[in-house]
This record gives sequence, C-alpha cells and structure tokens, in this order.
Amino acid sequence: MERFDPRHVFRAQLREIEAALARSLEGIEDPILARAMAHYPSAGGKRLRPLLSMLAAEAVGGKGADALPLGVAVELIHNFTLVHDDVMDEDETRRGLPTVHVTFGLPVAILAGDALFARAFEVLATTPARDPHALRRLFALVSGAIRTVAEGQQLDLLFEDKRTIPERAYFEMIDKKTSALYVAAAQGGAIAAGATPRQEAALRDYARGMGLGFQIWDDCLGLIADPRALGKPVGSDIRNGKKTLIALHALRTLRGAGRRTFLRAFGNPRASRRELDEAIAVVKAGGSLAHAEGQARHHIARAKGSLRPLRPSVARRRLEQLADFMVTRDR
Amino acid sequence: MERFDPRHVFRAQLREIEAALARSLEGIEDPILARAMAHYPSAGGKRLRPLLSMLAAEAVGGKGADALPLGVAVELIHNFTLVHDDVMDEDETRRGLPTVHVTFGLPVAILAGDALFARAFEVLATTPARDPHALRRLFALVSGAIRTVAEGQQLDLLFEDKRTIPERAYFEMIDKKTSALYVAAAQGGAIAAGATPRQEAALRDYARGMGLGFQIWDDCLGLIADPRALGKPVGSDIRNGKKTLIALHALRTLRGAGRRTFLRAFGNPRASRRELDEAIAVVKAGGSLAHAEGQARHHIARAKGSLRPLRPSVARRRLEQLADFMVTRDR
Repeated sequence: MERFDPRHVFRAQLREIEAALARSLEGIEDPILARAMAHYPSAGGKRLRPLLSMLAAEAVGGKGADALPLGVAVELIHNFTLVHDDVMDEDETRRGLPTVHVTFGLPVAILAGDALFARAFEVLATTPARDPHALRRLFALVSGAIRTVAEGQQLDLLFEDKRTIPERAYFEMIDKKTSALYVAAAQGGAIAAGATPRQEAALRDYARGMGLGFQIWDDCLGLIADPRALGKPVGSDIRNGKKTLIALHALRTLRGAGRRTFLRAFGNPRASRRELDEAIAVVKAGGSLAHAEGQARHHIARAKGSLRPLRPSVARRRLEQLADFMVTRDR
Repeated sequence: MERFDPRHVFRAQLREIEAALARSLEGIEDPILARAMAHYPSAGGKRLRPLLSMLAAEAVGGKGADALPLGVAVELIHNFTLVHDDVMDEDETRRGLPTVHVTFGLPVAILAGDALFARAFEVLATTPARDPHALRRLFALVSGAIRTVAEGQQLDLLFEDKRTIPERAYFEMIDKKTSALYVAAAQGGAIAAGATPRQEAALRDYARGMGLGFQIWDDCLGLIADPRALGKPVGSDIRNGKKTLIALHALRTLRGAGRRTFLRAFGNPRASRRELDEAIAVVKAGGSLAHAEGQARHHIARAKGSLRPLRPSVARRRLEQLADFMVTRDR
C-alpha cells in the first residue's frame, strides 16, 4: 500500500495555509517580539489543525476557505501553548530548535505567547461567516477550548507530583490538553461552513478521538521513533517521569526485576543511557507499549466511525486517511 | 467642593459589575487554577474599565447592560496582564498581596493568566449585540487591544536597558500598554450600544487621553501617595530605575549636585531610604513632578474635550467626572 503523505495529498491546502499563517504574523512593530512570535510557526509543522478546519468545512458541503481564518487561528493558539508550555516545563529545545524563552528570555516568551493568542482572535474575527450566530459560536468554541487546554495543563502539572494516576485521569487530561484544540478546529470548521447540528456533532466526535489517538501515539513515538525525527532522545519521557499511558500501564503491571528496572529510570534525571534502554526493553516486553498502541488505534477507529453520518465525499475520505495517518506517522 | 467618589456615585453599576465578574470566574474545575485566576479579581479594584464600558454605552443612548459582558471581559484581561506582568517583573507583592506566582508558583501563574484571557473571550461572546457586524468589530477591537498591550510591554522591557528614552517613546509605550485597554472598554461600549462612527470616535479619543492621564498620574502617586494606599514603598519606581515621565524629566533637566543625588538612587536596588527620600526631594524641587502632573491634567482635559460631540447626558457628565477623578485620586 502506498504511504499516505499529507504533505503531498494536501499540497494545495498547505500552500494556502502557509501563506495565511505568514500573513497573520505580519504587522508586529517590535522586531524582537515579531521574531519571538514567529519562532515556532516559521520552523514548520504538519499544520494538522488548519487542515482539519478546511476539510471539516468541505466535508459538510462548504468551502475550505471559509474555515481558513479559523484554521490559522487554531494554529497560532497551538503555537502559543507550545511557547508557554516550554516556559513552564523549562524545556530548552523543541524539535532540535532552542525554545523561545531560551532564545529571547522569559519575559519576551510570555509576551510572545500572549501576543500569538491575541493575534489568533484578530484572525478569527475575519471569518467570512454569513450567519452572525455562527461567528458568536466560533468565538465561544475557540475561547472555551483555550480555557480547557489551560485546565488540562493544570492537571498535567498536578500529576507530576503523584506516584501514579488512574488511566481515567490520564484520558481526562489529554482530552482537555490535546483534543480540545482539535475539536475547536474541526467542529469550528463545520460551524464556519454552516453545518447542521448532526454534522457538527460528527466532526466534534471525530476530532476528539483523533486528538486522543494523536496524543497516545505521540507518547509511543517517544519510545520507538528515530531520535532525529523526534528532536529529543528516545525515552526522555521515562527519564522525566511523565505519566504517559505507557508509563501508567508499566506502573500498574510490572513486577519483580522488570519493575525495578523500570523504576530505576522512571523520573530519574540521572538515569544513564543504558538504564533508559533497559527500561524501554522492559516496557516493550511487558506489553505496555502494545497496550498504548492498541488504545491509540481504538480511538482512531472510533474517530473514523464518527464520520458515518456525513455524506461520502472526497473530504470525508481525506479525514479518514488523516485519522489513520495519526497512528502510522513516524514523527 | 464635594469629593467625587466613584464607589458612591456608581454604587448600582458596581454591584452589577461585581456580580457579573464573580460569575465569570465560576466553572473552573481545578480548585488551584480557580483560586489563582480569582486571586486579583476577588481582591477588589476600582473596576474603572467596566464602568467605562457601561457609561460609554449609556452616553451614546444605549443601555449599560449591553456593554456589561465587554466590561467584564476587559476587566479579566486587565487582571490577566497583571498576573503575567508580575511574573515578568518578578514582583512579589501587588497592593500588599503576595503575587500569583509567589502564591501558586510560576507555571500556575502562567496558566491562570492564559485562562483569564480565554475566559474573557468566552464572556465577550455573550454580548447581546443586535448587529452581527458589531460583534465582529468588538472581537477585533478587544483582541487587537491585547496584542497592542503586549507590544507596549515589550517596549517597556526594551526601555529597561536604556539610560534614558525620549518622551515621545514613553508616550508611545503607555499609549499601547495602558490606553489600549481603556480604548477597548470605551469604544467597545459604544459599539455594543450601536453608536454612530462619530460617537465611537469621541469615546475612543476620550479613553486614550484618560489612559494617558491615568498612567502618568499613577507614576506621580508613586512619589506622593500614602504608601499604605499604594501597597508599595514611596519611590520604588526610582529605585527600580523605571522610565516614568518624572524620571525622564529629571534625567533631562537635573544638573550638578541634584543630578548626582538623583542618580545615586535611580535604578539602584541598594539605595537607602534616606537616599531615596533625597532623590524624591530633588525631583520635586526640580519641577519634574510638576511637569508630570501638568501632563496628566493636560491629557485629562483633552479627554473631556473629546466628549463634546456627544449629546449632553448624565452619562456624559459622569464620564467627565471620571476623567477628573483620574488625576485627583490618591490611590
């Protein structure tokens, strides 16, 4: 089977998205603030969220362009959360690039995040919605999603101090921290294109499952991906003691020597490369990685199923392929 | 002449504002995040921006209630900027209260600011605007204002590293950092109430002058106010080397012994209480304080003049009184 490559399949949309994204970062007077704001967006990215907005609009019979301002807004918001996340986590690199606060200092990083957030709403206000009610709902949807992301990040912070957490809590956290923006992108795309309530609900449920699958697969990639593609060392989530679905499964199921091997590396900033590799081997042998992969695929399958109420179309097919891509991508 | 006390004159509006503001902070699931978000708003405040929104709506013949969501949104935004400002400036107290990041830690402070920002737009989306175009313009106005505030804060950061700056640069900075939100509050109130372009422009110009006057007067209060009312020691702006209009005038005009006395305390974190008091005396004797007071009054007079195109009304009279209050208040 030929590999589905979004960069190829969505070349036309991606060109529109990149152009609109670049325009959205213009007109910032101070050159330092302007560069700090553009630091991540101009470093590239898969632009999954804007693609989702445009495909959602098309899948309900509208035009992708109607959802382009929304898509760009959500992409800016995604980037704003990355900037503030990196400050909170004191991360020094992202995808091999020095983080914004490392490059420009903490105050500028906070301001750049805030300014990206504000600019997102300036862009959203240019949505060519015919229906005034749609515009109001778009604003409520996107601002509610950002608040939800902050609540998810707060849960993530709380979980850091706990030995372990129930899977249920993990899912609540990623539902808020990751899926909320996917939902804003996809459901918002439907709203911008004048969808029916049934169509809207289909895209909301699709995006939720897609966000969960995306996040869980991201956790898996942290253990199996090429570190160059990843931009960070394999297993760094284990070293940082991150409560991924994989770690939660390992903490719940490992016994004896395997458990000791895992705990030697988990949350231990001084774990050696060898100790980390041994912990990864244990996690693979114990089925924790397979458990997470299975969960990721499960949520992607549910996401695709959610699209059934939509009339078959090229856009719907693309959304299905995009969902599959989430759990087959290698970076 | 009897003293104009906004708490008395606007008792009815303030009751509405406080109730709406309290409601706007409900529904945050995590108790720590909820408390961090409410830390400043629930500590009280003059609520000048929501008052401005409501009075602006009334002054163009509308209802204050039409502008209440906007007013609450701008108040939340004002509080969000305080939270992030305190992180950037590493301030430990605000009005005698420990700052959010001191109380809850830096990550929660960043998140609480972000969540206040997001919630502001959730509230703004409830504006009962009849005209769909008005809602779009409100969103563009408020989001543009926040981005402008971030640009003003960036200027403020840049100015920290300079020996001095031209007055022109100072005015550009406070126009962005302070006036922008006043403009959003007042011009937005007019928009929410369906004002004519002429009415809108009157309230925009009024709010701009008011913001400038407010900020310059704030700088003056830092030297003359009761430290208990101020919540910080008298002269701390001098110790911190802040480029206030007063400091800029002193740097431009002082010569000889007076200049040396001022420079001994200016930007010197180890300046003694006595050195600080001597610097304040020099600044007063040299006319720098009087210069700033004059500028504050000048912008307030211009602000009031801007209201002339509006039909005389109780609301217009109240706006004039509020402007005067800006440069007569002692805290």
